[in-house]
Amino acid sequence: MPETHVRRRAALRSRLQERDLDAMLVVDLRNVRYLTGFTGSNAALLVHADGDEKTVFCTDGRYLTQSARQVPELERLIERPCGPALAKVAADTRVRRAGFESHRVTVDELDVLDEQAGTTELVRAAGLVEDLRVVKDDAEIEALRMACAAADRALADLIEHGGLRPGRTEREVARELETRMLDYGAAGPAFDSIVAAGANSAIPHHRPTDTELVTGDLVKLDFGALVDGYHSDMTRTFVLGAPADWQRDLYDLVAAAQAAGRAALRPGVRVSDVDAAARGVVEAAGHGDDFLHGLGHGVGLEIHEAPSLAKTGEGRLSAGMAVTVEPGVYLSGKGGVRIEDTLVVRDGDPELLTLTTKQLVVV
Amino acid sequence: MPETHVRRRAALRSRLQERDLDAMLVVDLRNVRYLTGFTGSNAALLVHADGDEKTVFCTDGRYLTQSARQVPELERLIERPCGPALAKVAADTRVRRAGFESHRVTVDELDVLDEQAGTTELVRAAGLVEDLRVVKDDAEIEALRMACAAADRALADLIEHGGLRPGRTEREVARELETRMLDYGAAGPAFDSIVAAGANSAIPHHRPTDTELVTGDLVKLDFGALVDGYHSDMTRTFVLGAPADWQRDLYDLVAAAQAAGRAALRPGVRVSDVDAAARGVVEAAGHGDDFLHGLGHGVGLEIHEAPSLAKTGEGRLSAGMAVTVEPGVYLSGKGGVRIEDTLVVRDGDPELLTLTTKQLVVV
Repeated sequence: MPETHVRRRAALRSRLQERDLDAMLVVDLRNVRYLTGFTGSNAALLVHADGDEKTVFCTDGRYLTQSARQVPELERLIERPCGPALAKVAADTRVRRAGFESHRVTVDELDVLDEQAGTTELVRAAGLVEDLRVVKDDAEIEALRMACAAADRALADLIEHGGLRPGRTEREVARELETRMLDYGAAGPAFDSIVAAGANSAIPHHRPTDTELVTGDLVKLDFGALVDGYHSDMTRTFVLGAPADWQRDLYDLVAAAQAAGRAALRPGVRVSDVDAAARGVVEAAGHGDDFLHGLGHGVGLEIHEAPSLAKTGEGRLSAGMAVTVEPGVYLSGKGGVRIEDTLVVRDGDPELLTLTTKQLVVV
Repeated sequence: MPETHVRRRAALRSRLQERDLDAMLVVDLRNVRYLTGFTGSNAALLVHADGDEKTVFCTDGRYLTQSARQVPELERLIERPCGPALAKVAADTRVRRAGFESHRVTVDELDVLDEQAGTTELVRAAGLVEDLRVVKDDAEIEALRMACAAADRALADLIEHGGLRPGRTEREVARELETRMLDYGAAGPAFDSIVAAGANSAIPHHRPTDTELVTGDLVKLDFGALVDGYHSDMTRTFVLGAPADWQRDLYDLVAAAQAAGRAALRPGVRVSDVDAAARGVVEAAGHGDDFLHGLGHGVGLEIHEAPSLAKTGEGRLSAGMAVTVEPGVYLSGKGGVRIEDTLVVRDGDPELLTLTTKQLVVV
């Protein structure tokens, strides 16, 4: 979809003009992908404020064919390393002020860029492309939808085929989930899957071990799929066998907090207020200290990106933002529950992308 | 093995003293792992030139238990972000000059470090830990051996169970290899596996597609396993059915070049001469222009690390270096052969870690 990328580059150009930058040197690969559609492992882009005619894409010889196919509309430079090569292009084409990604470029790399940039002034411009990425366009939401669907289907299959049963290990469950996501079109897991059984479920970011699932366990699954570069993120918590009262109570509490968080997702709402909406439910039940993390985060080409739905988060929601809502209550040594969806903020109700039921499922 | 890490930190301390540094702020996670054994996803380390008593390890609250188990011998700071927190420790403990990893720290991060460092001078010290990592110790070689064994076994199983047969896709073969490596103890693949059939085998870094294997194809498999943080790397090329004369000739040529490269692996030899030993064989056969990359690279906590066995590589081999030897000849549109081992440079003959046969296997 070259027109999508043409539009994104145009949006970046207006930001450049606002900052009196004549160009922007983009070296972060996800940002390059966002602006061009290029999916290779080495590239950079010099976006010129004057337009696409003066914008130059750089990659190395391995991607000669692929870049011709994916980025046919831009001038291409085949050289390595790309950052310094494009800094030299900026100098040679008399760019006066070029922004660079000071949050990605290392101290040593900046020396090399400066050497090549000649009279071009390199100006810190951290997060310029990331700012654009916060509100997703239709192509991005479609990729997120497919990523969420792959995770939903994998989980449905896992449950249907008895994948959660006493005697299986956390590691085996994680592996089955990941394999099933591949069956549904994922390029891979979106992040290291969390499978946490019994007392392990009280550890927010537990890594799967050889711990066996036991009847009576809470089993927390936090996982996602990677599709077309976009990440899904979902957590569900199950009970193996008949739930104890404390497990049901804990589950109901977290589900109520999660529903409150989802209900707060509206354009114009402060991100810290979304966190507060869910956290208030947990605090009212006396478990405020057991909710050990923020409520959620933006998700897209990165698994964690802006906005941060947390106490300390800044700014307000806009339509088109893709975020997670994932309250959790963790009772150390006993067990924990987290329930997490990926959603898109819309005018009116948010759009839910992770469709697996949030009713307490007893397996 | 705390004594291993104690020894590695002592080696770093002598380097600090040579450079008149009172401390070194290590933020690269692989370097932190190398120096402490910590395997979590967030940490930093302030190695003090005076000794382990003054050295401080930092991670965040998620790793409270894990860090107590893995790094019991060092003072621990639980804070986030760790880099600035340790810069402040340096300031508070009157460190005069602290090295920092200028090849990892971004321009923006350095600002934050500088703010916290007070009167401590932050001095560029890129690659100090990486220099130590070039020569592997016994614990590292054992991890590499296990990683190579997982890959060898996965490949043997794949072949034995008819995994390479007409009609299968490159993607299916890659997935089976990766799954089988998990069966043999890998935490995951060491990198995105390459499975390239027919004309695709002429593309050095082809990504697996839905291309089906066809009788008569050259099939190139480049893959590895990740065990205890260490990467294995191996390439084998097969022929599906009876090989044509040109395929056999190509295979024999690459095998001869690879043997020449392995034979050149001796302590004291220039890395560029190892490349030349293998490349000379290919050039003598008139295929110099079809050998599109360097001969090999170091391998360890990173899949590509020093030394670089290439024309432009600098320095000499030492006993204990772990490297790949991987010549390839690629006939565009037709097919290519690459043969790659992971080996350890030893006094005398190198130790071969990837044990799969390099005879031409017809499947």
